Amino acid sequence: MNYPNGQKKPVNQSHPKAKHSTNIFSNRGMSLEDDINVTNQYYLDMNKAVIHKKPTPVQIVKVNYPRRSAAVITEAYFKQASTTDYNGLYRGKYVDFEAKETKNKTTFPLANIHDHQIQHMESIIHHGGISFIIIRFTLFEETYLMPAEKLFHFWSDKLNGGKKSIPYEKIKQSCYLIPFHYQTRVDYLTIVDRLYF
Amino acid sequence: MNYPNGQKKPVNQSHPKAKHSTNIFSNRGMSLEDDINVTNQYYLDMNKAVIHKKPTPVQIVKVNYPRRSAAVITEAYFKQASTTDYNGLYRGKYVDFEAKETKNKTTFPLANIHDHQIQHMESIIHHGGISFIIIRFTLFEETYLMPAEKLFHFWSDKLNGGKKSIPYEKIKQSCYLIPFHYQTRVDYLTIVDRLYF
Repeated sequence: MNYPNGQKKPVNQSHPKAKHSTNIFSNRGMSLEDDINVTNQYYLDMNKAVIHKKPTPVQIVKVNYPRRSAAVITEAYFKQASTTDYNGLYRGKYVDFEAKETKNKTTFPLANIHDHQIQHMESIIHHGGISFIIIRFTLFEETYLMPAEKLFHFWSDKLNGGKKSIPYEKIKQSCYLIPFHYQTRVDYLTIVDRLYF
Repeated sequence: MNYPNGQKKPVNQSHPKAKHSTNIFSNRGMSLEDDINVTNQYYLDMNKAVIHKKPTPVQIVKVNYPRRSAAVITEAYFKQASTTDYNGLYRGKYVDFEAKETKNKTTFPLANIHDHQIQHMESIIHHGGISFIIIRFTLFEETYLMPAEKLFHFWSDKLNGGKKSIPYEKIKQSCYLIPFHYQTRVDYLTIVDRLYF
C-alpha cells in the first residue's frame, strides 16, 4: 500500500475508534472488516478473485496545501454509503456484499442496514449479479452468509410492521456458516461456489 | 445523497481545487468525472446499469467527536488508489474502468496511469470482466474509450523503453469516440454494447 503523503499511522477507516489486536492471526480480536480484507487479499494473491472493500465515503470540506506534494485534509465528515461495502469479480460474475457484526446474542438488528443498500442489492440481482450479506455474531465467533433474496424477505416483513431484527436461531437454521481458515479467515467464496455455480 | 453530518458545502472529492460551472447542463465546463457521474446516475435511474464511482481513498488520522452524532475528521491524507475509479454491473457483466482527462493536444501522457492500476485491469480481464479507460482531450471536447487490452500494449511499449505517452492521432484512429447526449454526457455503454456484446 502507498501512503504518499507522509501520514503518521494507518487508522482503520470505517471504525476510527476501534482497537485492534497486534497478533493479526489469532482467532479472536480482529474485526470482521479486517478478516474480510485479509481474505480478499489472499483471494487476490492466489489469483482466485478480485474483490475489494470500497473506501469509506468522506465529504471533504477543507484541504490545506502546505507543500505541493502533501495536501492535508483538515475538515471532512463521514458520509452514509449509498451502496454496499464490497464488490468485485469472481468466476466471471459480479459479486457485491455488505458485512455487519453484532454483539447481540439473540438477534441481528435490521437497523444495521439502510434502505438504499437494499435498493442497491435489488438492482444487483435484477442485473444478474450475486449479492449477499455477511453477518457475524461476535460473541459466538460465528459468521454467516445470507443471500440478498433472503434478506429482502426479512426487510419487507419489517416494512409491513413485522420484526425489526432477525432471530439468531433463524439465521443459524437458514443461512450458511462461513468456514474459518488461517489465510481465508472468512472463506465466503466456498459458500458462493455452492450457492451460485 | 446524504450529508448527515452537517458539512457546509459539497466539494468535488478528487479535485478539491477544481472549479465547476453552475450551469450543469452546458456542454463545456464540467469535469469528466462530473459528466460520468451524471451519466451513471441516468443509467441507474433508467435501470440500465449499476455503475458507481468509488469514494476517493482517504487515510484518516485524527477524528474529533464534539457530539456523538457528528464526528469531524480533522487530519486526513489522500491515498493513491490501488484499483480503478469506477466499477459495476451491466447486462450481467462486471465492468471496471478508469477515466482521465488531459489538456494536452498531441498526446495522452501515460504518467496519468499507475502500475498497480494496470495490474488490476489485467486481473479483471483474466477473470472475465470488461475493462477499459475513458480518455478526454479537454481542448477538443473529445472523449474516447480505449479497451484495456489496447492500453496494455502501449504500457508494455513504455516499459520496454518506448514512448511515455500515446499520440492523439493513434487514439483518434484506433479507439472509440464516445457520443455526448444531454443526459448521458459520456454515453460509454453504447460503445460497450458494440465491443463486448
